[in-house]
Amino acid sequence: MKFITTFVSSLLLSGCLLAQNTDSLVIKKIYDEALGKGEAYKNLEYLCKNIGPRLSGSQNAQKAVEWTKKLMEDYGFDKVYLQEVMVPHWERGAKESAYILEGTARIPVRIAALGGSIATPAQGISAEVIEVKNFDELRSLGETIVKGKIIFFNRPFDNSLFDTFEAYSGAVNQRGQGAIEAAKLGAVGVIVRSMTNIIDDNPHTGGMRYLDGVTKIPAAAISTKAAELLSQKLRLKKSPSIRLYFQQNCRTLPDALSYNVVGEIRGSQSPENIITVGGHLDSWDLAEGAHDDGTGITQSIEVLRMFKSLNMKPRNTIRAVMFMNEENGLRGGLKYAEFAKQNKEKHIAAIESDEGGFSPRGFTIEDSPSATAQIAKWRYLFEPYKVTDLLSGSGGADIGPLKNAVPGIVLIGLKPDPHRYFDIHHASSDVFENVNKRELELGAASMASLIYLIDKYGIK
Amino acid sequence: MKFITTFVSSLLLSGCLLAQNTDSLVIKKIYDEALGKGEAYKNLEYLCKNIGPRLSGSQNAQKAVEWTKKLMEDYGFDKVYLQEVMVPHWERGAKESAYILEGTARIPVRIAALGGSIATPAQGISAEVIEVKNFDELRSLGETIVKGKIIFFNRPFDNSLFDTFEAYSGAVNQRGQGAIEAAKLGAVGVIVRSMTNIIDDNPHTGGMRYLDGVTKIPAAAISTKAAELLSQKLRLKKSPSIRLYFQQNCRTLPDALSYNVVGEIRGSQSPENIITVGGHLDSWDLAEGAHDDGTGITQSIEVLRMFKSLNMKPRNTIRAVMFMNEENGLRGGLKYAEFAKQNKEKHIAAIESDEGGFSPRGFTIEDSPSATAQIAKWRYLFEPYKVTDLLSGSGGADIGPLKNAVPGIVLIGLKPDPHRYFDIHHASSDVFENVNKRELELGAASMASLIYLIDKYGIK
Repeated sequence: MKFITTFVSSLLLSGCLLAQNTDSLVIKKIYDEALGKGEAYKNLEYLCKNIGPRLSGSQNAQKAVEWTKKLMEDYGFDKVYLQEVMVPHWERGAKESAYILEGTARIPVRIAALGGSIATPAQGISAEVIEVKNFDELRSLGETIVKGKIIFFNRPFDNSLFDTFEAYSGAVNQRGQGAIEAAKLGAVGVIVRSMTNIIDDNPHTGGMRYLDGVTKIPAAAISTKAAELLSQKLRLKKSPSIRLYFQQNCRTLPDALSYNVVGEIRGSQSPENIITVGGHLDSWDLAEGAHDDGTGITQSIEVLRMFKSLNMKPRNTIRAVMFMNEENGLRGGLKYAEFAKQNKEKHIAAIESDEGGFSPRGFTIEDSPSATAQIAKWRYLFEPYKVTDLLSGSGGADIGPLKNAVPGIVLIGLKPDPHRYFDIHHASSDVFENVNKRELELGAASMASLIYLIDKYGIK
Repeated sequence: MKFITTFVSSLLLSGCLLAQNTDSLVIKKIYDEALGKGEAYKNLEYLCKNIGPRLSGSQNAQKAVEWTKKLMEDYGFDKVYLQEVMVPHWERGAKESAYILEGTARIPVRIAALGGSIATPAQGISAEVIEVKNFDELRSLGETIVKGKIIFFNRPFDNSLFDTFEAYSGAVNQRGQGAIEAAKLGAVGVIVRSMTNIIDDNPHTGGMRYLDGVTKIPAAAISTKAAELLSQKLRLKKSPSIRLYFQQNCRTLPDALSYNVVGEIRGSQSPENIITVGGHLDSWDLAEGAHDDGTGITQSIEVLRMFKSLNMKPRNTIRAVMFMNEENGLRGGLKYAEFAKQNKEKHIAAIESDEGGFSPRGFTIEDSPSATAQIAKWRYLFEPYKVTDLLSGSGGADIGPLKNAVPGIVLIGLKPDPHRYFDIHHASSDVFENVNKRELELGAASMASLIYLIDKYGIK
């Protein structure tokens, strides 16, 4: 018996080693393809330079839909199609202007209307400024003090947090909800310190909300450099009091028809089972949406291109999804989940890349200890590429709605190095030149490798 | 007995946990200081923008010596001093020029003389070009074919290698030794594809050697974009044959007096024991030497500044060393080791940062399994900062000579993310703007944290 046990063990062991070895080799091929013959960088250049900014509802967003559809058709994916979705349509209009008014001096500062904000009156708004760090401080001032003023939200990122996304989370309610809280107390406008950890001249825009029943007041982001200046002036010069002038011309048009763009490689064994990989196709209007999220888009397409190019036949269907309208509505993500539920689609997993095209460090797994344990078993396969951090956290905004729509789905986010993202996030500096080719390619290879493993072994 | 054992175990365990907890807190303080109140970035800006390129023997190198000395004195380090060292003094002279000559057409291409090369004759060199990928291919051509020609070394980086430093190692003999091998067969000049993984317009310079008894011929780096063009033309147009013209004006002057700059915080218990942290102060002449190695310099100074600022009293002496002449001679590193040997200094460890100021990923430990094992025990302390890769490999060029000079010393390199380094290495793009503040600061904090642990617990 001992002999047989040993023999069987050896067989099992060698089978296991063989599988490991095969997986290592396949993954090596994927990384080699991405780094040696990758097309994500070239595609990203096209998206950034020939299309550019592509806010939901814009002509450029439509161009991006058409271009990615054609790109995936040209790659010969098994099926490429559009999913209709109605999206918000907000326009910045003519460039904003703003000045700090100090006695008779007019000091220009750079602002950008927040997405969704109303315009100022044509002649702009001029009012005294009150700086606050948070909503408690605002509320403690009360209506008497706030009424008629411009509220300046100036709570910076906590730079001591290692992950800049945590620092962002700790600051972003000023941008999202600031206009509501300030308007409740009678403020006439809101200026928000840009959501970035660096001190620069660029205003970083982003989404904001209004609340039914609360007066809508205009809201803009101010560059961190100007925020520091304004704060300093408010501290030093109580009299003559510091005033701020700003003028912006944005408007909200009726919802527009747009699309998620979907490309598929059909599964060879269980085509009804779906693994989704995606990013969002829309971007803010100030820049090229390179890291946010042109990189996620081109990496997702690259995953499918590499499966094809390397003649890898997935057991299950692999879908690349270019979600529309992540930035100011999430309508594409919601629609994709709605379709999945309606059509009773079977989804194994969804992987999103929307934290920039930086050097990949690992994956974020959403609320699934068993999936985390499974991926941890594969970690040794990612060691040569240093993609080894497994974190518990959100898989991403666009795939989020799948969680309730398709019970049992595993949601995963690609986790790149977080240190440079908010330097350029939602600002005019989010351009192709700030994306590194190798880093972009490594992210695509990392997602493709994980999908290869999930497709082969499953994941729960 | 059982009670006592348990009691003693508990004591030991709680003591151990307490130490771990203390270490975590100290390291958290170090990272907080670097990210919240760090001065490395500001110092790097000064070094890059107010001093700039600082090749050994140049006036700027002397300015850099004086400025770092004064900076460390102003920080109030216990001792700041210079170590004399004679260094090579090579100058580029007036800007080079080069053309591909195709029939009557003259296509300008960008080159940069390699450091140490001789000039061309004043009127330049014009000759037929032969492209080779390696020395074997060159030798197989033989003297008959090579004689009178310009040899074009065009072996690219192997981009499939994850670590770009490995790709660099696989290509750099063309630059270092190409002129020797080509001259042995009668070539009149050498053009080397720039040592970078990207395709760009910048020539990337770097050191080259001659050999006594072999004719010295001029050697230059050509941008990868121009290398691709030249290679294409050589493939496509055999007739009329492609010629290359280049002209450069560099010269080697007599050795010059220069200095290593050393700053110390004196050990409170064993001041005779030394832990060194350093980078190199000299840089190539084409850019600001931001990543190579202004980041290592300013991080090393920052380590000592943080020890002082956080009122951490090291048991052993901590030394920041700005090595002179890493780029074209290593004289500073050799001199530092010579002094250490002469003075019978006791060195515990030396840590070098010379792979760029990118996001730190871990440490390279040179030939010491026991030190690697020791650092591996501390790895959990670096987990929150994701500085967890422990690799076997060179600690760095400048600290290398200490190995033989001071037996038992542990040599360690800071290992940052490797993907962007060779984009800018030795090229005009190695400027302050390409350094990220957080990444720079995290590198300084990582080295300071490791030094704190080595100082407290020792390392073998």
